[in-house]
Amino acid sequence: MNEFELIARLTQSLPTNDSTVVGAGDDCAMIDLGLPDRLVLFKTDAVVEGIHFAKGAAPEKIGHKAFARALSDIAAMAGTPSHALVTLALPAEFDAGVVAAIYTGMSALARRHGVAIVGGETTTNPERMLISVSVLGTVQKGKCPLRSGAQSGDAIFVTGELGGASSGKHLDFEPRLSEARWLTGHFAIHAMMDLSDGLAGDLRHILNSSKVGGELLSDAIPISRAAKLAGRAKSSARPALLAALADGEDFELLFTVGSRDAVPLLDAWKKQFPELRLSCIGRITAGSGLTIRDKKGAQPLAVHGYVHFQKA
Amino acid sequence: MNEFELIARLTQSLPTNDSTVVGAGDDCAMIDLGLPDRLVLFKTDAVVEGIHFAKGAAPEKIGHKAFARALSDIAAMAGTPSHALVTLALPAEFDAGVVAAIYTGMSALARRHGVAIVGGETTTNPERMLISVSVLGTVQKGKCPLRSGAQSGDAIFVTGELGGASSGKHLDFEPRLSEARWLTGHFAIHAMMDLSDGLAGDLRHILNSSKVGGELLSDAIPISRAAKLAGRAKSSARPALLAALADGEDFELLFTVGSRDAVPLLDAWKKQFPELRLSCIGRITAGSGLTIRDKKGAQPLAVHGYVHFQKA
Repeated sequence: MNEFELIARLTQSLPTNDSTVVGAGDDCAMIDLGLPDRLVLFKTDAVVEGIHFAKGAAPEKIGHKAFARALSDIAAMAGTPSHALVTLALPAEFDAGVVAAIYTGMSALARRHGVAIVGGETTTNPERMLISVSVLGTVQKGKCPLRSGAQSGDAIFVTGELGGASSGKHLDFEPRLSEARWLTGHFAIHAMMDLSDGLAGDLRHILNSSKVGGELLSDAIPISRAAKLAGRAKSSARPALLAALADGEDFELLFTVGSRDAVPLLDAWKKQFPELRLSCIGRITAGSGLTIRDKKGAQPLAVHGYVHFQKA
Repeated sequence: MNEFELIARLTQSLPTNDSTVVGAGDDCAMIDLGLPDRLVLFKTDAVVEGIHFAKGAAPEKIGHKAFARALSDIAAMAGTPSHALVTLALPAEFDAGVVAAIYTGMSALARRHGVAIVGGETTTNPERMLISVSVLGTVQKGKCPLRSGAQSGDAIFVTGELGGASSGKHLDFEPRLSEARWLTGHFAIHAMMDLSDGLAGDLRHILNSSKVGGELLSDAIPISRAAKLAGRAKSSARPALLAALADGEDFELLFTVGSRDAVPLLDAWKKQFPELRLSCIGRITAGSGLTIRDKKGAQPLAVHGYVHFQKA
């Protein structure tokens, strides 16, 4: 049983209530607390030493990453984060300077986005550090794209460049909060999520939730310089395109819009965010499954994104 | 540097914003999202295998405990929990049946209190299981007692019986949600918190936050049967009173009210909650520090509650 199978099993029959608009299965939970024009977003995300960051990584960057991952999920729902709690599980022999620097990295990012850190806790995890960030935010009613909204014929877009995040970007990416709100403020975004497990795996979440298929254009996928450099290394058995499809931790926005909006959106984006690439990488199709088209034609895409653990 | 010193240092300069009513330092954060008559409560709490529960403990009870601890913090603010997220950090070789049973324990408690479990995540923690629960709730404006509200002359109350929780109660206690709301609905509760680290340590949090002192009456402290039994064991070097003061994980309510309310409150409580003991255990004093009075007179209370870790 892998992570996705386990989650699917666990989330089949969770307790719910009337104020739950979206429960498990999207980037954030969405809750109606009775505000006239806004819904509440609620999300938690954890990073673990030796898995999501190396033991010797710069502590400010560890803090930044832990916090940015949770904010990226708020961005995926076009929301505005407002409050966060931080759980720090530490070995008994922790270095107080390292812990303070982790908070420095989190606090700098929080301040840039107006997020208050309103508490949390420290506890013990003897063998390794674990940081869990819970975040609250809000989103305007009617302006929150879910994973389930993609429609046949939609154009598929992705921000930035993909692949190779482990060489550095995974520790200092910026959550695409203002970009996501601009998108939903100016266009009818049908479906959106943030890329954490790799384009190939994450796009499948949108396809499955929306009960549609998808076709990627091989030449249109924006490959990062880091992925290209790694792909050129003589020892590499990993082509750059595969890295862009499956490396994960890109934390870019993946979204779909109706085909008529595609060109106007690209034009408006270039004026609004001239320094951040936006790529139309394919289209949503009727049916199911994910294919990739290159000069030789279309074929089923076999590669999956990163799966956190496997069990026999 | 111990846990409290670390937290004090980390929380000195956290980012804040205008909608934060109470940040770090109370049982929950309190947030004003713009609801006309209610404030939002936000809390996270983690339990770690080998620290908060034994490796072989019944998985339903592990789930119950993880969830009940977070709900107990909502009770401490007289709130109503509404939504929760669950982070499950697991060794790679987890037992899916154990994980499902943990969720069964959490879900049963969630359903009893109308709480929706709206997602979360599974991640990897190779050496041991860690469960973190984030919970959202609301509380009526003007009906939320903080740790900082105790006043000189107040009577100090505690629900239930204290000490010896590690012999069983820590795995199956009930968060005092309805009791707390009844208290704030019928009496002016000046200060309240839930007991997690032991009466002696936790009461000091109220005293320090409220800038007052306190005097406990040795004979009035309700000692649990488990603590009495352990205290009578020939091998025990731990008197039952010390267990009640310092064992921790009681998850009872500790609160103060004006002295004129003390007797009416005890009378009304007995009618409302005939099966749950309520004890007046002392009074709030001007000045600072915590004393305990027995037949020989009053003396400073030296014992502290449980401190999660110590570092030289």
